[in-house]
Amino acid sequence: MSPASPHHTTLWQVRSQRPIAYDVVKTPGLFAPGNTTLLGYGRPGGRRFVVLDARVWQLHGSQIRAWFAAHGIEAHYAIFPGGEEHKNIDALQDLARALDAFPVHRRDEPLIAIGGGVLTDVAAYLAASYRRGIPHVKLPTTLMGYIDAALGIKNGINFGTSKNRLGSFEPPLAVLLEPAFLRTLPRRHLANGLCEIIKLAIVTDATLFTQLETHGARSLRLAFATPEGDALLDRAITGMLAELAPNLHEEELSRKVDFGHTFSYGLETRHPQRLLHGEAVLLDCLLCSLIAAHRGLLPDAALQRILALVRQLAIAPKPDVLEVELMWQALQDRVQHRNGLQRVPLPTAIGQCTFAHDITRAEIARASAELQERLLHDDEPTLQR
Amino acid sequence: MSPASPHHTTLWQVRSQRPIAYDVVKTPGLFAPGNTTLLGYGRPGGRRFVVLDARVWQLHGSQIRAWFAAHGIEAHYAIFPGGEEHKNIDALQDLARALDAFPVHRRDEPLIAIGGGVLTDVAAYLAASYRRGIPHVKLPTTLMGYIDAALGIKNGINFGTSKNRLGSFEPPLAVLLEPAFLRTLPRRHLANGLCEIIKLAIVTDATLFTQLETHGARSLRLAFATPEGDALLDRAITGMLAELAPNLHEEELSRKVDFGHTFSYGLETRHPQRLLHGEAVLLDCLLCSLIAAHRGLLPDAALQRILALVRQLAIAPKPDVLEVELMWQALQDRVQHRNGLQRVPLPTAIGQCTFAHDITRAEIARASAELQERLLHDDEPTLQR
Ligand SMILES: NC(=O)c1ccc[n+]([C@@H]2O[C@H](COP(=O)([O-])OP(=O)(O)OC[C@H]3O[C@@H](n4cnc5c(N)ncnc54)[C@H](O)[C@@H]3O)[C@@H](O)[C@H]2O)c1
Ligand SMILES: NC(=O)c1ccc[n+]([C@@H]2O[C@H](COP(=O)([O-])OP(=O)(O)OC[C@H]3O[C@@H](n4cnc5c(N)ncnc54)[C@H](O)[C@@H]3O)[C@@H](O)[C@H]2O)c1
Repeated sequence: MSPASPHHTTLWQVRSQRPIAYDVVKTPGLFAPGNTTLLGYGRPGGRRFVVLDARVWQLHGSQIRAWFAAHGIEAHYAIFPGGEEHKNIDALQDLARALDAFPVHRRDEPLIAIGGGVLTDVAAYLAASYRRGIPHVKLPTTLMGYIDAALGIKNGINFGTSKNRLGSFEPPLAVLLEPAFLRTLPRRHLANGLCEIIKLAIVTDATLFTQLETHGARSLRLAFATPEGDALLDRAITGMLAELAPNLHEEELSRKVDFGHTFSYGLETRHPQRLLHGEAVLLDCLLCSLIAAHRGLLPDAALQRILALVRQLAIAPKPDVLEVELMWQALQDRVQHRNGLQRVPLPTAIGQCTFAHDITRAEIARASAELQERLLHDDEPTLQR
Repeated sequence: MSPASPHHTTLWQVRSQRPIAYDVVKTPGLFAPGNTTLLGYGRPGGRRFVVLDARVWQLHGSQIRAWFAAHGIEAHYAIFPGGEEHKNIDALQDLARALDAFPVHRRDEPLIAIGGGVLTDVAAYLAASYRRGIPHVKLPTTLMGYIDAALGIKNGINFGTSKNRLGSFEPPLAVLLEPAFLRTLPRRHLANGLCEIIKLAIVTDATLFTQLETHGARSLRLAFATPEGDALLDRAITGMLAELAPNLHEEELSRKVDFGHTFSYGLETRHPQRLLHGEAVLLDCLLCSLIAAHRGLLPDAALQRILALVRQLAIAPKPDVLEVELMWQALQDRVQHRNGLQRVPLPTAIGQCTFAHDITRAEIARASAELQERLLHDDEPTLQR
């Protein structure tokens, strides 16, 4: 290269907008014979590559198959095992090969993802990447997906030792919610989704928190198949979308919905056999609530309500996973992720929060010790694994 | 699931816009000691993950290293071998691991990609995927990158037997053009980039075509380091961006710049040792020009000018790779890619084209036989491999 050419620069400017528009549609009876909701996405008939959770396939496969057949759609079912251990690049490649072998049109034969948060994260990442993006429709079948994982535009896979290290922001064509899927979900997975609702309530919505106190336990027992349970989920969805929609690409890195998503990364990565995502999030929420209380940010009455709710619902995982060094390292990675600042949401009241950038190792240690103490000495039994 | 619940649907709507804005800046002397252009992207000092073509590293590495050191930037150089065979998921994973080991801030420490089209495609895909997207700056060092591969928002890797099967649309923070890089490029790779310029000229720009006829051969010989060569590249860039910018996400699937990009996919995938991307594109352009002429769409005088230009530049690869079945299969895959229609650009004059949806196997066979005839019996020698 010429080492010292004068700087005669020439400039071209590229300016554009990518419009994002999708609907989240709650449709009870989505696979009932006459239901045509899903037909609204993609061309009539044609082909669909359907990524389906293996457990959902067992429980609901015949009805789903019958529906596609009845509507003259040639479907290929890629059966995908749920669980965090399958959220990886090998699973992604297997799906990509299957999709290659069952080609679909690039634009009007959307990929259909039916499953929990693991499945919709992997399948949406596949759709986002395949031919640089084919459309996809998400049908969450777990509570985690229903009130969180499937609602936004984030997808991803785990890589190396990090959760969601590879992924993208890709809007779905639509998100279709069928609450009946929740009825076959094991209690632990209902509780897992409930943790994200609790998270949302603590930092954004006092009314939702009260609904949880009043109807949470019964809703959990009945898989939310009651008017109160349904209303609770609707409010959680509305609240979650209100947080996500104005910040779809996370231009703003200080996000309230990141409450519970700081130390949890380390915990769930270290203990994949013991902790589900929501369980790790709940521990993190409690830890941050204690840190906030220790700082005098969160009134004691609010802290007590949070602990009482968790006790009442009997959903707290055993807290002996709370290794301080692990959580401290997770915080360091979040600092990279949040562009140099901690940005840890700390509750200041039920329904409100602030962001801290200066949490110390000592604070984590103190909160962690106290949380272990409190959860272990609860009168109510904690959920055993 | 309840098989026949009434359809009480509930609707949430998500609506947003993602603004896209980036500059393409030609900056002779980009790595000259005092040049500060690259400092305009990302925070002062800090860290940069630099993905660098191995050949560029040999030829220009010391100057590049000196520049980063002089500006107090802690750079990690990930040396990446060029060539289509490295455009794969293993290379992507290696880079992801290296980036994990040299963490950068998510937002203000952009990944810097310095290399040819293979490198910028892989590195931009990595940047687009890592933490669901960190910013990246592209610095093309081949003619292919300079006038095409680095200018737009498309990235990708090859997968299975398909080119660019996985990838995304991700705007760069900026594209910085340093023409001095072209001076160390072997003739074959200069010719390779030139093929894409010829493609563009045939279907969109008669003036550019005339510039090629007048200044192409000398420009090629002198690595475009003349006023005419420079002007030719500027016009090619302007023309390419004019095609790309209004259609960044390829909402419109009938794209003039897809001229030469139908049969070429099969050819270059089958003959990775023999054909570079631009060489396959050129064969495809000639084939389509013959098909257009056979259909009476392209006047014979225009066809003759196209063939004469290729002869004059002495850049045509040996045409014995033109297997009809291979090209026919490539067309079928493009039909999936173009959502059910062929959409093959066929020139109708120098600088103009139309789209065909009904090309037959027989037409491909006839054009292919004639092209082999014409190229083999040229007086001018074709480029030997
Ligand atoms: N993209 C996002 O914005 C986002 C948000 C939150 C969580 N997530 C991700 O979601 C994942 C967790 O999701 P998950 O908890 O749904 O896990 P999951 O997908 O593994 O599902 C949990 C289990 O439930 C089974 N299952 C699914 N549907 C069922 C049904 N209807 N009946 C019976 N069993 C059923 C599955 O087979 C699996 O064993 C995590 O990887 C997390 O990172 C993503
Ligand atoms: N993303 C897009 O929109 C787009 C458009 C066109 C082409 N492409 C892709 O571009 C790729 C081809 O790019 P390419 O032709 O640049 O290949 P390449 O990146 O492999 O580079 C070609 C060779 O030149 C060497 N090299 C690079 N810079 C050099 C320099 N300054 N001096 C000497 N040697 C140098 C490399 O080491 C390599 O051996 C294909 O994979 C194609 O699909 C992408």
